[in-house]
Amino acid sequence: MCRWLGYVGAPIHPRELMHDPERSLIEQSRRHATDMALPNGDGTGLGWYANREEPALFRTTAPAWGDENLLELATEISTPLFLAHVRAGTGAPVQQTNCHPFRYRNWLFVHNGYINRYPDLRRRLLLAVRPDLFGNIQGSTDSELMFHLALTFGLQEDPLRGLEAMAGFVEACASEAEIPDPLQMTIGLTDGRTLHAARYASAPVVNSLFVSEDVESLRALYPEREGLAHFADDARVVVSEPLVHLPGMWREIPAGTALSVGFSVEARPFNPRLPDALPAAS
Amino acid sequence: MCRWLGYVGAPIHPRELMHDPERSLIEQSRRHATDMALPNGDGTGLGWYANREEPALFRTTAPAWGDENLLELATEISTPLFLAHVRAGTGAPVQQTNCHPFRYRNWLFVHNGYINRYPDLRRRLLLAVRPDLFGNIQGSTDSELMFHLALTFGLQEDPLRGLEAMAGFVEACASEAEIPDPLQMTIGLTDGRTLHAARYASAPVVNSLFVSEDVESLRALYPEREGLAHFADDARVVVSEPLVHLPGMWREIPAGTALSVGFSVEARPFNPRLPDALPAAS
Amino acid sequence: MCRWLGYVGAPIHPRELMHDPERSLIEQSRRHATDMALPNGDGTGLGWYANREEPALFRTTAPAWGDENLLELATEISTPLFLAHVRAGTGAPVQQTNCHPFRYRNWLFVHNGYINRYPDLRRRLLLAVRPDLFGNIQGSTDSELMFHLALTFGLQEDPLRGLEAMAGFVEACASEAEIPDPLQMTIGLTDGRTLHAARYASAPVVNSLFVSEDVESLRALYPEREGLAHFADDARVVVSEPLVHLPGMWREIPAGTALSVGFSVEARPFNPRLPDALPAAS
Amino acid sequence: MCRWLGYVGAPIHPRELMHDPERSLIEQSRRHATDMALPNGDGTGLGWYANREEPALFRTTAPAWGDENLLELATEISTPLFLAHVRAGTGAPVQQTNCHPFRYRNWLFVHNGYINRYPDLRRRLLLAVRPDLFGNIQGSTDSELMFHLALTFGLQEDPLRGLEAMAGFVEACASEAEIPDPLQMTIGLTDGRTLHAARYASAPVVNSLFVSEDVESLRALYPEREGLAHFADDARVVVSEPLVHLPGMWREIPAGTALSVGFSVEARPFNPRLPDALPAAS
Repeated sequence: MCRWLGYVGAPIHPRELMHDPERSLIEQSRRHATDMALPNGDGTGLGWYANREEPALFRTTAPAWGDENLLELATEISTPLFLAHVRAGTGAPVQQTNCHPFRYRNWLFVHNGYINRYPDLRRRLLLAVRPDLFGNIQGSTDSELMFHLALTFGLQEDPLRGLEAMAGFVEACASEAEIPDPLQMTIGLTDGRTLHAARYASAPVVNSLFVSEDVESLRALYPEREGLAHFADDARVVVSEPLVHLPGMWREIPAGTALSVGFSVEARPFNPRLPDALPAAS
Repeated sequence: MCRWLGYVGAPIHPRELMHDPERSLIEQSRRHATDMALPNGDGTGLGWYANREEPALFRTTAPAWGDENLLELATEISTPLFLAHVRAGTGAPVQQTNCHPFRYRNWLFVHNGYINRYPDLRRRLLLAVRPDLFGNIQGSTDSELMFHLALTFGLQEDPLRGLEAMAGFVEACASEAEIPDPLQMTIGLTDGRTLHAARYASAPVVNSLFVSEDVESLRALYPEREGLAHFADDARVVVSEPLVHLPGMWREIPAGTALSVGFSVEARPFNPRLPDALPAAS
Repeated sequence: MCRWLGYVGAPIHPRELMHDPERSLIEQSRRHATDMALPNGDGTGLGWYANREEPALFRTTAPAWGDENLLELATEISTPLFLAHVRAGTGAPVQQTNCHPFRYRNWLFVHNGYINRYPDLRRRLLLAVRPDLFGNIQGSTDSELMFHLALTFGLQEDPLRGLEAMAGFVEACASEAEIPDPLQMTIGLTDGRTLHAARYASAPVVNSLFVSEDVESLRALYPEREGLAHFADDARVVVSEPLVHLPGMWREIPAGTALSVGFSVEARPFNPRLPDALPAAS
Repeated sequence: MCRWLGYVGAPIHPRELMHDPERSLIEQSRRHATDMALPNGDGTGLGWYANREEPALFRTTAPAWGDENLLELATEISTPLFLAHVRAGTGAPVQQTNCHPFRYRNWLFVHNGYINRYPDLRRRLLLAVRPDLFGNIQGSTDSELMFHLALTFGLQEDPLRGLEAMAGFVEACASEAEIPDPLQMTIGLTDGRTLHAARYASAPVVNSLFVSEDVESLRALYPEREGLAHFADDARVVVSEPLVHLPGMWREIPAGTALSVGFSVEARPFNPRLPDALPAAS
């Protein structure tokens, strides 16, 4: 089970969310929660937007908790929109190209979950990727492939529809191959303006996902927490697990739901559906 | 808290103890026991004797659980005596020269524990290392320094006396600097023939250490466990935590005790004492 | 341009060829020859046969010249058959899964060269790999793909025919896509018994390849060179570039030639040809 | 022989000097000049000032030419003052703590050169470091130790005097130990405002060092080179070897000379001298 975090709002230093909180993403990566079997020590990544349309990427196979470069970077840079990820591998090798976020032009993508029996489905799914996108696949994870399937199915025009079509297609291929419970996912996705998040699984148990409630209320509730004081009114954080356990701070995103976080937070159902044009099984 | 394992007996493939058991060293490095705060993901190492007087070393900063090279090696090589270690750093950087085992000529050394407030003592301790040994220190851990202090105090002539003098000296320096509870240690040490182990702490709580009971009894007790069947009669394993939880399989080494494991297992008290010739404080 | 070395004969320590000679493979990887544009600093690997049918692998992204583990291993192990490789990447990322040798069951494969405009051909070639072999592809190099195409085309039954069919197929796909000079290759390949080598390019300039002449003559010629004295009569070395420059020591393998080195050395022409059953272009 | 580059002027993206020029630092690290024996593949680093008094650091053991993170960073960040370094090790291990720049508070330090027979002098030199600075030494290179000796001898108050005292002290210790030609160095040093550079060796052959001539003249001379057009009037580059070979672009810094580059460039002789208070030899 991976963990990830997305932020959108006035520029902050990523370490304010990645390293500093009591249950920061980095701390989560190694200090086990009661329900956590394994550490997230199989790579980490940070993608952020600052001076260019295209996001910058830092990815490393080193566990996040000991990586000096990540701490330096998260302290130094300032960004209004970023995605961070700590990986617990589910079979694909520990290598930089398997670290999240994945990038395509101005888009970033992170994933927590898996495609069940991925080795049995990989070839079929890879063939469905649009040939001009194929060269952008550099690693061997299910996550990166899911991103490129969603791109194939129109993610750039309609992000949530693209994700739904990806999910529908994966489920259809799994069904063909008689593979049960094919998909487990929370996804973070952004084009540099809006932060999208989706929580979905083919089976009843679904990885968790939370969005921060409005910052104004937080400020009133926790005036002594300086760390929160300078967050702007429209700042929002999406996380796979709460960074601090404060009553009223985090709203759980229901399973089967997608979120778009820009100036406001919009939720809508997430319904996997087949892409309009189904790629050939070749 | 690091974890380590030592084996002496007829040649085996290290993976039989490092990877295969239910609670193998590698599995321990990431799958938390209830009393374990952090994973051992800050480096790993294997030192073994096979074709030469001097042991061979494999050390890597990658977490043990995902390292393909370690698995290949532990599967391929065959050795009658080895020490393996998984590290959870306590301040010193994650780098190969900080991975255990440490080596000097035909000697190997592993450590689980720490010197309390090591940064305040490091210079003082480093100065005490015999100048001709100084160049063999390649990293920056307290563990490597403890090894070289023990070498300075005669480890090669009398291994346990060397360790006791090291412990006595560290405690004396700490006392001078008014540092409480200076030492926490279980140590594995070998010259390629005998495997020594010591369990000691300046304070009441001491990291755990176990030695396997005689293999004969194990065979009778657990005939169905094929993995144990081919171990020779004189095979012994020393571990920081049991590899499998079987009644009668592991004997806890009492705190303040040292063990020498060759054809037989000899235990004796471990009593830190000052070295005969105290290095100047310069 | 990568460099590689294959050895077959009585067991030796790989360092005798990888590290010790004047122009050892490791030295070649960083100390430039006059005709060498770039160092081979993008990863290294050693695959060897010793105790099992299946070879053991050590691969690392670290440059060979500074890797302590490689030196330890090459000093410690003893093997009658090994392949070693130092990589200079041609576009694919520097990661362990892109390091040679590549392995499939009892087979090892190394390559020096490239597929011209590989990104334009990759998808087409990947689709041609037999689905049951697909899961064994872990990296993203042209080299690994060439190996799996050769496996698809019968390498296990007839190694050189498999390589020829691979080469023919790559050339046919390139021709379809109007890509000139598609293939540049020297290949080392072994099943654990025989060492095969092939030298071929679609264009006139072909990377170099050498095989050692018989050891007996060497011994007579260079009695003072102790390093050579203990090589057995049937020992043979295949290298991309001579390890030492001694008259009469190395025989150049002509372009368009394949070699099989076991108890004797057999050469025959290397003729790319289309596989009997051409995979669909899907 | 390492290579390094320092920039001071209006903010630029480091890649404009590190990656883009014909003979960029990164390209130099692998593409050999005729007089270059070995690649600079033993680690790389970038230290830069942007949002804080203290510089940010990125250091990695990966060769600079293949490191994606370095390229991302050098493309994304914008800085008026930075130091970059590519390492060719001279004995100390390849590890992050041995990569330049070294940092102390607001100071950055890079070095090309060596202390002759450093292992024989290391202990003596280490003892001379001021105890409160000792804990800031994280690696094992001569370079980092030189920096901390200069700090010990007053670098923060008078940077060039600090360097001279360090050089004088190293030479005195070497003389005591009868070690010839003790010091070879070009050094880059900055407090975040002024960029200092020194070129010196105890022997006649001295590593090269260059400073860019005024940008105005460059603009007139090479109007078609867009890369230079946006450099501000006061921009200066100090390099161990020219980035492009253009007549009149680079001025060689004479051996035995130190430079201070802020709004103007000031040169003065570099004269090693003993520190006012000599540390005890203990």
